[in-house]
Amino acid sequence: MKKGCKFGTHRVLEPVGTLPQPALKIDNTMEIYDNEILIDVQTLNIDSASFTQIKEQAGGDLAKIEEIMMGIVASRGKHHNPVTGSGGMLIGTVKEIGPALEGKTDLKVGDKLATLVSLSLTPLKINAIKEIRKDIDQVDIDGQAILFESGIYAKLPEDMPQNLALSVLDVAGAPAQTAKLVKEGDTVLVLGGAGKSGMLCLYEAKKKAGPTGKVICYGRSEKSMERVKRAGLADVLITGDATKPVEILEKVREATNGEMCDVTINCVNITGTEMSSILATKDTGVIYFFSMATSFTAAALGAEGVGMDTTMIIGNGYTKGHADCALNCMRESEVLREIYTELYA
Amino acid sequence: MKKGCKFGTHRVLEPVGTLPQPALKIDNTMEIYDNEILIDVQTLNIDSASFTQIKEQAGGDLAKIEEIMMGIVASRGKHHNPVTGSGGMLIGTVKEIGPALEGKTDLKVGDKLATLVSLSLTPLKINAIKEIRKDIDQVDIDGQAILFESGIYAKLPEDMPQNLALSVLDVAGAPAQTAKLVKEGDTVLVLGGAGKSGMLCLYEAKKKAGPTGKVICYGRSEKSMERVKRAGLADVLITGDATKPVEILEKVREATNGEMCDVTINCVNITGTEMSSILATKDTGVIYFFSMATSFTAAALGAEGVGMDTTMIIGNGYTKGHADCALNCMRESEVLREIYTELYA
Repeated sequence: MKKGCKFGTHRVLEPVGTLPQPALKIDNTMEIYDNEILIDVQTLNIDSASFTQIKEQAGGDLAKIEEIMMGIVASRGKHHNPVTGSGGMLIGTVKEIGPALEGKTDLKVGDKLATLVSLSLTPLKINAIKEIRKDIDQVDIDGQAILFESGIYAKLPEDMPQNLALSVLDVAGAPAQTAKLVKEGDTVLVLGGAGKSGMLCLYEAKKKAGPTGKVICYGRSEKSMERVKRAGLADVLITGDATKPVEILEKVREATNGEMCDVTINCVNITGTEMSSILATKDTGVIYFFSMATSFTAAALGAEGVGMDTTMIIGNGYTKGHADCALNCMRESEVLREIYTELYA
Repeated sequence: MKKGCKFGTHRVLEPVGTLPQPALKIDNTMEIYDNEILIDVQTLNIDSASFTQIKEQAGGDLAKIEEIMMGIVASRGKHHNPVTGSGGMLIGTVKEIGPALEGKTDLKVGDKLATLVSLSLTPLKINAIKEIRKDIDQVDIDGQAILFESGIYAKLPEDMPQNLALSVLDVAGAPAQTAKLVKEGDTVLVLGGAGKSGMLCLYEAKKKAGPTGKVICYGRSEKSMERVKRAGLADVLITGDATKPVEILEKVREATNGEMCDVTINCVNITGTEMSSILATKDTGVIYFFSMATSFTAAALGAEGVGMDTTMIIGNGYTKGHADCALNCMRESEVLREIYTELYA
């Protein structure tokens, strides 16, 4: 059996010397190296920005979506959307564990797991697409995938349905990072707060900001905002278009008596919301970009362009304990669990 | 005289409702609104990532570079490179000040200034390109530009030549942000440390990390690394290719006895260096991406992909006192001033 690199560089075909994530093509042969884990895949959970783009390109047509997805995997060896650069995650069953991992992993053959590394770096083979659940970005397939030694994962919990766990784990980084950033008494804005990652961020923000803080949810659809209101996830609700910075500036100014926000979390899955995040935040504040549709230069030059000294953080999908943090939202809040079960499971 | 918005939204032609930086086209009529400043432009200092791209597209040909630059300004009303998304800055003389700015600005007609907001949002008209100094990204023009009310600027200092001040002010955010991030005793890596922003970062990093810290310069060209060595800007020098993460991982591991870096500053002006930054940094460390060639998704998914909890910050070209910080590097260090005068002035 061949020896593999911890980060999976042994699978990179193009360009050589890089890592699997930025690579344009990786080897998706389903024969494991000594430190890899082979997974029988059940469901792909496509990243929201990626799936939105695919659906748009396909004009919503299921056969077209299937064709695009098969094309991506055929050309890249992984589900790495060439337009958005993003991936997603998967659930499946452990089929084989490389001998070099013995004593290094708590997994055994037959375990159900969710991979918490992006599909954009995961060797994947799709034999057939079985069902596309287009409203929740989930796709059931017949196929296999490889988890590298450095790849993070979570065993699926026993106390909730698989699809619910998958949906929540997909955005696990967002609530955990929110919990790390927000301090008691903070004014927090969540852009795209009524979406899948957004509502978990609101929940953690409210816990951390406490009764002296203020949590603002900015969302577009009346229906989803109504849900946030019913669940009591935010102190202030603003319905509007996140790509209109001047509109946001005025609405947030009003909601904060001109103080603006200490922390802004951007969970919007469309492009062009960087300036809105910047103008809504205090000069001394922090913006956390969780959206994969964020443009680095638009953020960097946008802040400079308006002379704002704001700290802008690139959303890291991983932070210690993130899986537990996200699953605990479902365990702690009955109303959140009901909403996520209805919408995403 | 027409009344303008503080952020210059009144000049946005497409798409309406956005700000001048992300806009695809802005109005570059050289007739000021009541809160604008009209500038007779002397020199453009094109952003390094942008000018590198333009030079490559032109195959180094001066007439071709001119044609590309004129084309960008003709289509966008600003020097906003459509490939890199970045701009640069300019120096010039104040020609006219809108009456609404009276008492709000310390500028007067005839003052020489450098704009510290990006060219990617600055209304610009080029009548003629007079000289292209292709090795230092500077272009002398006959033309005019507009500074918005929120636009930051620096009056050109009297104690150094204009071109030197312009070169240093162009990257003023980098040393100032480095000074804010680095703490005593830190191990600091500057990728692209032998370049224009890199050397200023090294200088500030050494001041802040102090004798118990360690500053590592990673650069590509032997000649420029020799310069860094002679100037004593770093404790450790590593020559290599910043797009090869595995190579960097091994070299930095060796240089730090396996500890890796507390702070990594990325000043490389080419794409594909995100993973190198991530692998060189401690799990608990901070990466500051100053390079405009940074890909948001490559950074976000790259860190998650290798299970690293690193904090990654989007380089903000502006922070309080950044112009003074950068100019002070030239005042404090004779050897740095000599190098910058030779290379960039």
